[in-house]
Amino acid sequence: MSDNNLCTLGSQSVKLKNEVYINASASIVGKKEGEGPLGLLFDMVGEDDMFGCKTWEEAESSLQKDAVYMALGKAGKKPEDMRYIFAGDLLGQSIATSFGIMNYNIPLLGVYGACSTCGESLSLGAMAISGGFAEDVICVTSSHFASAEKEFRFPLGYGSQRPLSASWTVTGSGAFVLGKQRQDGAVARITGMTIGKIVDFGLKDSLNMGACMAPAAASTIASHFVDYESQPEDYDKIITGDLGSVGQRVLLDLLRDKGYDIADRHMDCGMEIYDAGSQDTHAGGSGCGCSAVTLSAYILKQLSEGNWKKVLFVPTGALLSKTSFNEGQTVPGIAHGVVLEGL
Amino acid sequence: MSDNNLCTLGSQSVKLKNEVYINASASIVGKKEGEGPLGLLFDMVGEDDMFGCKTWEEAESSLQKDAVYMALGKAGKKPEDMRYIFAGDLLGQSIATSFGIMNYNIPLLGVYGACSTCGESLSLGAMAISGGFAEDVICVTSSHFASAEKEFRFPLGYGSQRPLSASWTVTGSGAFVLGKQRQDGAVARITGMTIGKIVDFGLKDSLNMGACMAPAAASTIASHFVDYESQPEDYDKIITGDLGSVGQRVLLDLLRDKGYDIADRHMDCGMEIYDAGSQDTHAGGSGCGCSAVTLSAYILKQLSEGNWKKVLFVPTGALLSKTSFNEGQTVPGIAHGVVLEGL
Repeated sequence: MSDNNLCTLGSQSVKLKNEVYINASASIVGKKEGEGPLGLLFDMVGEDDMFGCKTWEEAESSLQKDAVYMALGKAGKKPEDMRYIFAGDLLGQSIATSFGIMNYNIPLLGVYGACSTCGESLSLGAMAISGGFAEDVICVTSSHFASAEKEFRFPLGYGSQRPLSASWTVTGSGAFVLGKQRQDGAVARITGMTIGKIVDFGLKDSLNMGACMAPAAASTIASHFVDYESQPEDYDKIITGDLGSVGQRVLLDLLRDKGYDIADRHMDCGMEIYDAGSQDTHAGGSGCGCSAVTLSAYILKQLSEGNWKKVLFVPTGALLSKTSFNEGQTVPGIAHGVVLEGL
Repeated sequence: MSDNNLCTLGSQSVKLKNEVYINASASIVGKKEGEGPLGLLFDMVGEDDMFGCKTWEEAESSLQKDAVYMALGKAGKKPEDMRYIFAGDLLGQSIATSFGIMNYNIPLLGVYGACSTCGESLSLGAMAISGGFAEDVICVTSSHFASAEKEFRFPLGYGSQRPLSASWTVTGSGAFVLGKQRQDGAVARITGMTIGKIVDFGLKDSLNMGACMAPAAASTIASHFVDYESQPEDYDKIITGDLGSVGQRVLLDLLRDKGYDIADRHMDCGMEIYDAGSQDTHAGGSGCGCSAVTLSAYILKQLSEGNWKKVLFVPTGALLSKTSFNEGQTVPGIAHGVVLEGL
């Protein structure tokens, strides 16, 4: 391949030569998410957060399994049609993924980017197709309120008080069938991406992850504008994953400092998925599942209906573990941007 | 891109149209690994396993930092020359990676495949270059005996007895600079890969990971032969990551059942890195670092010196977590195959 076949753009972006179709997607959420503002849009809502399983981790695995099943069904595809599955979650060693998707027998490329994993999986999935390594792939990510609280913070039984800056981990999973060929029912195109760097402003508060992640989101979004030689006005929406209301303020301020005002077109999945006032979710929703289910149920719907033409979708992740937290480390952030366009 | 530009092979393999060069690599290990049979080959050996840090996790992070630093130095490259870093480790939320590589400011694509992560990072890194998404990338993985025992099994202070089937997690990190262009000092080429599926034979013994991973290794190796229409004789060596002596026997038996005899050319990194008899390591070495440092120090040396022309390198991973283990789940395996050829 000669050099002019490179599809890199600026310092950290890619503009795909061969656009990739999102041929189908599916979302499954828990009871609380089903009661939120987007409740009616999800493909499936659980009656309780155990989903018929014995443990929270198994329940989260069942979310991935169901999301993949529904997305494949909508695309009219079988597991064996998928060349790879790009999958991940928040739990140690990504066990929600391992036990959720193993029976599909799809070659697995496991990814980890904390709550930015949905953006990473879509980026790598689109590269795999656009680069000629696959015709069809599936991407899936998940989170679960109870498995995440156990993994990162306090046992739920303690009934710990949550500060107003805390977010509520979304119980949910979103799956996306990407293809080289546009199928009937395709909902959008992936046309490019901006791969994020780790950004660490030195914050150490695991109950204010919005502030920890906002600098990474600002970095990725600003780099995207520079690489693409674009402006906020070129996008109908600029959508972060789970900054919540505290992180949003930080993001808007940081981007203003860099000369970009995105206030009139910024949306945060974490602020859309719950009614913070009535649902007691404080700063907003978070987790690998938050951006994934909001993308599937709401964002792709707006794109497929033509209400939006082009959005920059930027899932945001906090690189936190209970071990690093207990050892006094900071909570660095990372965010990956994906350019989504209507058909 | 037209359909004939697809470089997929069979059901789970890729044959790269544009081969990718391993332009440099570096390895760093702990004291015990330095005392083993490969000790003189590693680029750096620590005087103790803390590497000047306060915690085991920080020590593991410093391994990744040093491996990347040395590999970039050998390649004559700066961090900003790297388009992406494909990185991962065994710890929850991949914290060895986050805190190890963040100061390089390279766009990060975090990967998780347990001890197969080295194979996954090389596969995705090579696809990114071959597909036109980068000119140069770096791949790094690590493990640390003490951080891994804490993450997966018993506190070291308990002095738990280890059965003979147990493996010893390698303290070490290996980094690989991949490039589209062959540089002076390049050591090998990546010409293809076979992406593995999760294989679960129902084993639940976290102290016999070789047996847990061997079925996945057998699956990937057999699929590779089918996809490539090749035979064991087409490779100078077929090299697994960390099956150890117990897993090796299982692998050879399973492959014989499938009609392949690889006994005369099989090598396992975990069996090479320690002298099991004198070093009390039982079944052998394991961990993300095991295959990575053995690849960098030993396998690539054989390829660059022309002693071997072509090998199939198959890092093996056990998809275990302490949570899933304590909840009674099995230990499924995964293995990714990478075809490495001399220059």
